[in-house]
Amino acid sequence: MQPFVWESRIRFVDTDASGRIHYTALLRHFEAAEFEFLRSIGCSYNTLEGGYPRVHVECDYLAALRADDLISTAVTVDRVGGTSFTFGYSVSVEGRPAAKGKITIVCIDPKTQRPRPLPERLAESLRRQAG
Amino acid sequence: MQPFVWESRIRFVDTDASGRIHYTALLRHFEAAEFEFLRSIGCSYNTLEGGYPRVHVECDYLAALRADDLISTAVTVDRVGGTSFTFGYSVSVEGRPAAKGKITIVCIDPKTQRPRPLPERLAESLRRQAG
Amino acid sequence: MQPFVWESRIRFVDTDASGRIHYTALLRHFEAAEFEFLRSIGCSYNTLEGGYPRVHVECDYLAALRADDLISTAVTVDRVGGTSFTFGYSVSVEGRPAAKGKITIVCIDPKTQRPRPLPERLAESLRRQAG
Amino acid sequence: MQPFVWESRIRFVDTDASGRIHYTALLRHFEAAEFEFLRSIGCSYNTLEGGYPRVHVECDYLAALRADDLISTAVTVDRVGGTSFTFGYSVSVEGRPAAKGKITIVCIDPKTQRPRPLPERLAESLRRQAG
Repeated sequence: MQPFVWESRIRFVDTDASGRIHYTALLRHFEAAEFEFLRSIGCSYNTLEGGYPRVHVECDYLAALRADDLISTAVTVDRVGGTSFTFGYSVSVEGRPAAKGKITIVCIDPKTQRPRPLPERLAESLRRQAG
Repeated sequence: MQPFVWESRIRFVDTDASGRIHYTALLRHFEAAEFEFLRSIGCSYNTLEGGYPRVHVECDYLAALRADDLISTAVTVDRVGGTSFTFGYSVSVEGRPAAKGKITIVCIDPKTQRPRPLPERLAESLRRQAG
Repeated sequence: MQPFVWESRIRFVDTDASGRIHYTALLRHFEAAEFEFLRSIGCSYNTLEGGYPRVHVECDYLAALRADDLISTAVTVDRVGGTSFTFGYSVSVEGRPAAKGKITIVCIDPKTQRPRPLPERLAESLRRQAG
Repeated sequence: MQPFVWESRIRFVDTDASGRIHYTALLRHFEAAEFEFLRSIGCSYNTLEGGYPRVHVECDYLAALRADDLISTAVTVDRVGGTSFTFGYSVSVEGRPAAKGKITIVCIDPKTQRPRPLPERLAESLRRQAG
């Protein structure tokens, strides 16, 4: 299966005084790609029960990105557990790899703030993509 | 009366590829100064009824700020109305003026999302500072 | 002349604990619209001589924006001076006005950090848009 | 040796519509703690040769943080290599652990954008802290 790919542009506000992207700004692009991926499989967070905080984030920065670079972020489903799941993110710019990340998201009950089982609709859709 | 002054440091994440602060980042420092000012007069937002969205923001940028600059932000109460109020912000670095801003905040009822009268405790405290 | 319009989506990172957009986040969308407008008239900043800091920013927030809202930002050229220019920004969501802003940008010589005349190519293009 | 600890306050702009901190915002607090740690050992980046991009970032989020929470971030030197080093970050709020992160920073030659040996002054200071 082809991974979902989202294009976005590095903005001036994303850069810092080094002239390159500030590492935290790339994570905003991950978020856009993730939300669009979930929309594409009919599982936008705001259509699902539960809250979805991140419990683990990691990223390797492989190349400098600069303002106006047009990046492609591929989103893959790396793991689907009972109460959490892990997305993989691969960023490239003009075909060259620029970053590789991983984020684990847990589904919580907003009232108790405790983990709860993933909504079945989400779990099934993610498993199909992880396929 | 001496205005309330809050010190904060420009961070690397606040800068952009020009080598100077990104103009939006300074507004984060305004927010810190404003919250600390309200704490100092016993009126932190989280102790007050209502929501407090901004309805008007303006800022003149008078000098370049750079990473690691230690700035002082003076907060003044420029206006206290029935349902809204306006804060003034004067930023200086090493005694030189660096920015001057103004923010108008309206008190809303979170349920109706419509303006409502300022809580009396807040209105009184602000009027005393505006004095 | 039809104004340039740029579509973008409010992201989760743009929101705050009020459930609405944080007012500073909208300015990131202004920036994207502005850079795309300049690209559309062949005047991206990175193709022009000089630095382009903001010296004045103002914005009226007219309606609450929330995560996933698709906004349209119209960019107009409000003024073209000798060393500076002013853009207007009108944000709407589903046809309803959501914000109205204005930003004045000055062209500086990066070496002296002093204002310098706008590059002729930029001044002409902006004047044509200001119609 | 006591680790260096930096106190900072979660700001409203750091939160998102979940009511909790947005995970990227915590990394801004890591950055403040890291810069203050380096200042405390006389090795602020702006006094050192070279550029210092991040090549790896990871973080486990252990508890929800909210606006106005006062956090403590302990910074430790986890590794000092020839051209790079790794910092550890432990965040607590009122004594309870809230997050644990790790960032690897490489020293580059700004001209070639290639890794170069750490300045001796920095390497020595970090090794002393790594104890």
